[in-house]
Amino acid sequence: MQYPEPIAKLIDSYQKLPGIGAKTATRLALFTLGMDDKVVRSFADSLISAKEDITFCEICGNLTSKDENPCVICRDPSRDQKTVLVVQNARDVMAMENTREYHGLYHVLHGLISPSAGTGPEDINLPSLIRRLSSHPEIKEVIVGTNANADGEATAMYIARLLKPAHIKVTRLAHGLAVGSDIDYADQLTLIKAVEGRNEI
Amino acid sequence: MQYPEPIAKLIDSYQKLPGIGAKTATRLALFTLGMDDKVVRSFADSLISAKEDITFCEICGNLTSKDENPCVICRDPSRDQKTVLVVQNARDVMAMENTREYHGLYHVLHGLISPSAGTGPEDINLPSLIRRLSSHPEIKEVIVGTNANADGEATAMYIARLLKPAHIKVTRLAHGLAVGSDIDYADQLTLIKAVEGRNEI
Repeated sequence: MQYPEPIAKLIDSYQKLPGIGAKTATRLALFTLGMDDKVVRSFADSLISAKEDITFCEICGNLTSKDENPCVICRDPSRDQKTVLVVQNARDVMAMENTREYHGLYHVLHGLISPSAGTGPEDINLPSLIRRLSSHPEIKEVIVGTNANADGEATAMYIARLLKPAHIKVTRLAHGLAVGSDIDYADQLTLIKAVEGRNEI
Repeated sequence: MQYPEPIAKLIDSYQKLPGIGAKTATRLALFTLGMDDKVVRSFADSLISAKEDITFCEICGNLTSKDENPCVICRDPSRDQKTVLVVQNARDVMAMENTREYHGLYHVLHGLISPSAGTGPEDINLPSLIRRLSSHPEIKEVIVGTNANADGEATAMYIARLLKPAHIKVTRLAHGLAVGSDIDYADQLTLIKAVEGRNEI
């Protein structure tokens, strides 16, 4: 037996989301039926308008409203125009912004170079970084903030090699123990990075 | 910092779903931005049409399309009209139907009597069961298929007491060990129920 078609279609839609299988999709669909009409309508509207009104910033590649392009960060003259932090995705920008301690600019790659998955430099938002650096000589430092996994390292190495001839300083976010964490809970790679990156006190 | 408004609104919508917190909602919203335009539009459409085209069957209370009321099960003359299985929700109907072994009718309560939560018999789809039974004297047996927890038991007891004077047989789905399960993994309550409900072989 099948659920009535409108429910089956909704279950199917929910199932297209990451990490949501058949059971969860069914639960969400049946929950939706019990939600307030207005809430469901605003959910549907927000799906459409997120797709229609959001685009990529023409400078940094981060997500931005179509009527704010370049994005608010790129247009903000009070930000440090000499530093660009390269990150994998929009969530990384948000995490960094929420610290309120970084005041430079960003460049969002929307992916990483992945030799194993066959993702090359041209497949991510990297060519636009090169163009950006050559047309903005005021940028003196590129901080690579990719994750500390194989793809993140490959991307960092690629960027470093690429920018060396241009005499732009390339740095990498420090890896080590999380503040407040226990040494005996840290994974081996983090411990190794923490030893490698030790500082004199 | 906030995500651009259309994204923030979408995150907010996702967060209204059960079991979805801020982090997951953000992940889903950003994933949605990368989905195909047509898929997102059909997602939005399915939300609206599930709300607009689905109603409760006027007989059994199960979910059904507005143009199929009474529902397909209630309208099927080949089903055993003498037996009604009372369940908590539409998912229970689906689970039972998928066994293809039950051929009677259903009654969907959309809830359980819960003394602790203050949910009484009038707050769930129980009055309609009483009306249904009095206008359909061909119904000879009511099987109570509520879960084996406190609320499920309270609901089963209430129904049994209510129908006794009407000389309708009230039975309860058997509780015991799941088929194929290990005894040493079963919880205590299940083991007790399995002993209580033991059968001669």
